[in-house]
Amino acid sequence: MKKLLIASTSTVHGKDYLEYILPELSEFFKGIHEILFIPYARPGGITYDEYTAIAQKGFDKINLKVRGIHEFKNHFGAVNSAKGIFTGGGNTFLLLKKLYEMKLISSIKNVVENGTPYFGTSAGSNITGLTIQNTNDMPIVYPPSFDAFGFINFNLNPHYLDPDPTSTHMGETRETRINEFHTLNKIPVLGLREGSWLNVKGDKVLLKGELNARLFQKTKSPSELPPETDLSYLMKL
Amino acid sequence: MKKLLIASTSTVHGKDYLEYILPELSEFFKGIHEILFIPYARPGGITYDEYTAIAQKGFDKINLKVRGIHEFKNHFGAVNSAKGIFTGGGNTFLLLKKLYEMKLISSIKNVVENGTPYFGTSAGSNITGLTIQNTNDMPIVYPPSFDAFGFINFNLNPHYLDPDPTSTHMGETRETRINEFHTLNKIPVLGLREGSWLNVKGDKVLLKGELNARLFQKTKSPSELPPETDLSYLMKL
Repeated sequence: MKKLLIASTSTVHGKDYLEYILPELSEFFKGIHEILFIPYARPGGITYDEYTAIAQKGFDKINLKVRGIHEFKNHFGAVNSAKGIFTGGGNTFLLLKKLYEMKLISSIKNVVENGTPYFGTSAGSNITGLTIQNTNDMPIVYPPSFDAFGFINFNLNPHYLDPDPTSTHMGETRETRINEFHTLNKIPVLGLREGSWLNVKGDKVLLKGELNARLFQKTKSPSELPPETDLSYLMKL
Repeated sequence: MKKLLIASTSTVHGKDYLEYILPELSEFFKGIHEILFIPYARPGGITYDEYTAIAQKGFDKINLKVRGIHEFKNHFGAVNSAKGIFTGGGNTFLLLKKLYEMKLISSIKNVVENGTPYFGTSAGSNITGLTIQNTNDMPIVYPPSFDAFGFINFNLNPHYLDPDPTSTHMGETRETRINEFHTLNKIPVLGLREGSWLNVKGDKVLLKGELNARLFQKTKSPSELPPETDLSYLMKL
């Protein structure tokens, strides 16, 4: 049975990296001593080693060892023997392109579908949806496809932002962008605010954290969903 | 000799569509009675006809007739006989995909390189750069490439937004996103604030409007460029 924690962000304002979600992570990775870190979305200017060290620092607080996939000679072997997987944030286009290049899409998909716990933040969460078409990221590289893992049967918009009523900026709001997506696509999109996450067990999906999420569906008005909302029905659409 | 007006936005806060740039447009399209409108970036929910009507309303004030490319049976003929071209904003991925599908990239490129005046706003400006990799838009469709017209020898980030120092949002700022682009690409990126535009004549590029633009180059600190800055040197890099 697949098990995922799909978080909007790694960090909420005023707290350390992963701090806000450590109690949940501790429970999620219970009994596991080491997880595999996928640093491929790494933001500019730091190495995979440095990014892995940041992840390690976050997980130190719950005594979990983190090893970057780049440390392994055989990355397929690393995935297959991993007890848990964490994919960090950065740029979603870059992450997806690298996963395709490394031919890791099907191997990660396979282990996660078969029960290896998967934790993602931001870009690492975007790729758990059907496609990355609702990312906020800049298309700094061209991936061979926008299709992603599809562990959930909908798409995510992490770091969801409400329109600022005082803004004089004429660029599209997040809601406008997602509505435009729905003029051409029917995949539901869940706007996950920073501090929210999804807990997925098989086809059961629960909204966690203290904030509402905003659900966008083609031909429907957006709806505000409170914490603990059961989103499992989206897996069957 | 190519002639382009490349605008950050169609509309600035508190003014009507195109209003802020009408004096420049009047000069740019002087002696021309009708221009061809490319509505393919159209934002959700309106038809090409409706979008063309919006453009027409903007150009009514300078007595310029606007015809949508979708009104022509032969869209290549429409491009080849156009006295001027305007590509409106919307979604850059959608616009570029449609231009590829209609095989219009080379025909528009050809007439513009040979002197047909081209005016773009937002998405219509993004595609005048080398690639669309610095768009702010959501990747709601998958274009066959990110390569664009390359009328200018750099990329644009329209609707450029400065970081908000009071924000508690953890998503990347525009500057961070562009810096990440430069960890992987060396194309210069010009952040054009709303109300700014470029006037291009051959290889001469001038920054117009009342605001500074922000230039990002790989391995250099970003620089603030005042109005009337001559950017022609970027065409030779």
